[in-house]
Amino acid sequence: MASYQKLTPRSEDYSKWYNELVVKADLAEQSAVRGCMVIKPYGYAIWESIQAELDRRFKEKGVKNAYFPLLIPKSFLSREAEHVEGFAKECAVVTHHRLMNDPNGKGVVVDPDAKLEEELIIRPTSETIIWSTYKNWISSYRDLPILCNQWCNVMRWEMRTRLFLRTAEFLWQEGHTAHATKEEAEDFAKQMLDVYSDFVTDVMAIPVIKGVKSPNERFAGALNTYCIEAMMQDGKALQAGTSHFLGQNFAKSFDVQFLNNENKYEYVWATSWGVSTRLMGALIMTHSDDNGLVLPPHLAPIQVVIVPIYKKEEQLAELLAKLNPIADQLKALGIRVKVDADSKYTPGYKFADYELKGVPVRLAMGGRDLENNTIEIARRDTQSKETISLDGIVEVVKNLLEEIQKNLLKKALDFRIANTREVNSYEEFKEEVKKGGFILAHWDGTPETEQKIKDETKATIRCIPSIELPGHRTDEPGVCMVTGKPSAGRVIFALSY
Amino acid sequence: MASYQKLTPRSEDYSKWYNELVVKADLAEQSAVRGCMVIKPYGYAIWESIQAELDRRFKEKGVKNAYFPLLIPKSFLSREAEHVEGFAKECAVVTHHRLMNDPNGKGVVVDPDAKLEEELIIRPTSETIIWSTYKNWISSYRDLPILCNQWCNVMRWEMRTRLFLRTAEFLWQEGHTAHATKEEAEDFAKQMLDVYSDFVTDVMAIPVIKGVKSPNERFAGALNTYCIEAMMQDGKALQAGTSHFLGQNFAKSFDVQFLNNENKYEYVWATSWGVSTRLMGALIMTHSDDNGLVLPPHLAPIQVVIVPIYKKEEQLAELLAKLNPIADQLKALGIRVKVDADSKYTPGYKFADYELKGVPVRLAMGGRDLENNTIEIARRDTQSKETISLDGIVEVVKNLLEEIQKNLLKKALDFRIANTREVNSYEEFKEEVKKGGFILAHWDGTPETEQKIKDETKATIRCIPSIELPGHRTDEPGVCMVTGKPSAGRVIFALSY
Repeated sequence: MASYQKLTPRSEDYSKWYNELVVKADLAEQSAVRGCMVIKPYGYAIWESIQAELDRRFKEKGVKNAYFPLLIPKSFLSREAEHVEGFAKECAVVTHHRLMNDPNGKGVVVDPDAKLEEELIIRPTSETIIWSTYKNWISSYRDLPILCNQWCNVMRWEMRTRLFLRTAEFLWQEGHTAHATKEEAEDFAKQMLDVYSDFVTDVMAIPVIKGVKSPNERFAGALNTYCIEAMMQDGKALQAGTSHFLGQNFAKSFDVQFLNNENKYEYVWATSWGVSTRLMGALIMTHSDDNGLVLPPHLAPIQVVIVPIYKKEEQLAELLAKLNPIADQLKALGIRVKVDADSKYTPGYKFADYELKGVPVRLAMGGRDLENNTIEIARRDTQSKETISLDGIVEVVKNLLEEIQKNLLKKALDFRIANTREVNSYEEFKEEVKKGGFILAHWDGTPETEQKIKDETKATIRCIPSIELPGHRTDEPGVCMVTGKPSAGRVIFALSY
Repeated sequence: MASYQKLTPRSEDYSKWYNELVVKADLAEQSAVRGCMVIKPYGYAIWESIQAELDRRFKEKGVKNAYFPLLIPKSFLSREAEHVEGFAKECAVVTHHRLMNDPNGKGVVVDPDAKLEEELIIRPTSETIIWSTYKNWISSYRDLPILCNQWCNVMRWEMRTRLFLRTAEFLWQEGHTAHATKEEAEDFAKQMLDVYSDFVTDVMAIPVIKGVKSPNERFAGALNTYCIEAMMQDGKALQAGTSHFLGQNFAKSFDVQFLNNENKYEYVWATSWGVSTRLMGALIMTHSDDNGLVLPPHLAPIQVVIVPIYKKEEQLAELLAKLNPIADQLKALGIRVKVDADSKYTPGYKFADYELKGVPVRLAMGGRDLENNTIEIARRDTQSKETISLDGIVEVVKNLLEEIQKNLLKKALDFRIANTREVNSYEEFKEEVKKGGFILAHWDGTPETEQKIKDETKATIRCIPSIELPGHRTDEPGVCMVTGKPSAGRVIFALSY
């Protein structure tokens, strides 16, 4: 169990607050291997909820899971020119396949005789190995579409790492689809973005802006990268998911052609799309507060905790006689409930611990409640509590969970709206961007201008929005704040994770 | 879809039959990386069923999932002396963390400046990294037990690989538990063996013999290795799962102590246990036949396929009007049904394909059936088929699935019993062992004798059985067939995968 020690407040040091929270709430911790994290059981349980719900939604789209090798031949990475340019430099390289006892002492050393002919790379993403496989799977239009996904670990040798947000190894899913036509592929990439957007909004209670990446921020090898962007409580943007329309780039690099229904060979059209354990970072930073984690009920491993407050064993029995049937009724509704009657910890300790861990609803019952037929109900999001009648408690809890879910989304959306503003001059932009939040500004559409803005302010174009933003029009033409050249519409600038 | 081409019969070349079946039934295939397989969607769907059911059973035991790093510092592997001796030699070694453009030409090369200070090993198993983590998690008896499991990929640089049975990379789960007492740890290791045994028997329809490994076959670093052994159709043994009682070995190597309830420091007691994608190999080799895969209904991704046989579109509509409600009723019972009305393939092609893929029950309906209110029902295990009335078809299918499940287990058990025999002299043993099957013989309990038998016959002790074998007593003392020294009981010898 976690310690009572308080978290550093967000206002004092947001980054420190985050790091402390992740560890203290038993979500994850650094491992003995630089940049690689251990995901602890409580954190992993949340990830399992995310996985289960996303997996169900993928399968509704006809996607099937498969598994492709962890290691990629080095030569594969350079097959797609843009891909290798934007990627694959900072990565873990396997060069040998055997250890041996150290001839000069204790321990083991790498056996110099066991050098690989070609080095292998731990996958930073799997387009290359998958398209080398798809070549064997595809010969005719009858073999299309292929809609595959894999849940796996990937590795990018990041220099500066932060738990969940940027780690050398992380867990993710990567979908890779193959289609007969451009239209179908592009449409599928958009459909998967919708799956992500709906999931992140409805289940994680994180409002997102759907859009498309500017060329500088596009995935290496993609023709278009669709994305969802969320705003964290410090006003920074976090990319919560991407879906790429890859055109025929990988099919050409790996020579994947199919005989179409007019008996002509064509290159296959591709998409790829992924979300990662980074979503855990988004979840934590969107909802949590200075007292710890705040979890949306739809994802919480424990939705309701029930704590009997007792001094003697016989009083515990009396309390449990009331509380266990409530737990059973809640469970029958599919609600994840824990009754915590553990005598090793005090109620005060438990309250602090469940608060730190973000359990949405806490019920507590003591001797006086027994007499009065009442129970204390506390909600984590607003930290309010009240003593209410036991009658109808199951219905009250059920409704409260839904209310908390809605409230978290609304609160996050209100925050984003309050921190989204239009800026028209570059001077103003430079000042405003430091304050955080999303800035809607005109841009001339060139990579050069985008790069200049990034170099001078660290802000990047998070996306060209494809949805309406409350209170703003982003689709009206204007002039670029930097160059004065024509702009098709406002795009979203922000500092980002 | 798979091709019509026949499989090599088992009697002609068992090994070839297996290799062809795995590929043709769309279960897995070799990848571009030596020894690493691609698990195809159909094969992965079976693995997902295995995972889901095992995961549920682990959680019933209080086990929680977590995730530990893929990479292990080289020095960790040599901490536990026996562990490194028996392991960790043939493994993938990461030595660098960056690629760079080849200064002399095209493509990428390893950046020599990006050499790691200490090499990292892709986990062959995770005892070392996990116990280095548990050190931070455990200080008091209150922190115990810890019951963690992870589903992940591991890598062992095997020289000779076979799809599912022995691959350089494979998927598995590895449970790692920490306990306050020897008794509790040893008991938990046995409980997990029971979980495996029940699962493999009841869900995979594979009969197994529970037992304990002889010292030579024990996991490197374990005090005791409990195992389940199954017999394949060629008479070879396949180890289907192991559960290790690790004593305090890893706790001592990583200095993991706890304050017990008498306020004294003690080293923690450990277990680890795992099953892998090797189970897929066991599944295939236990039940399948010369026509393809045979799947036990409890694991089959498609339990029932329904094929309408039609010439004109309007006839299809008539057939579907009868068939879709049957499919819906079956689905309502939780049965996985596919209605295949795809006009791209002929019924004959479909029949062959679903046979190859091991779908347990096939229903087919044509024009005459429409007139007669009948349907053809075919079972994959016995390859029998009959035309029956549509009335009560749902109940018939439901019962048939259970009957097939039971029949497969019985058939495999009968085969094992028929191929298990007692042998009393080493001369006879040398002849008998070549014929395959399990041989029950006396052994003096020494590693030397076991090694001699292995060197001379290739047979190993699969286990010292802990369950009764039908028709045999293995717990009666005797004399070793090799040395004539006393033997506590018969053990199981076999050639193995």
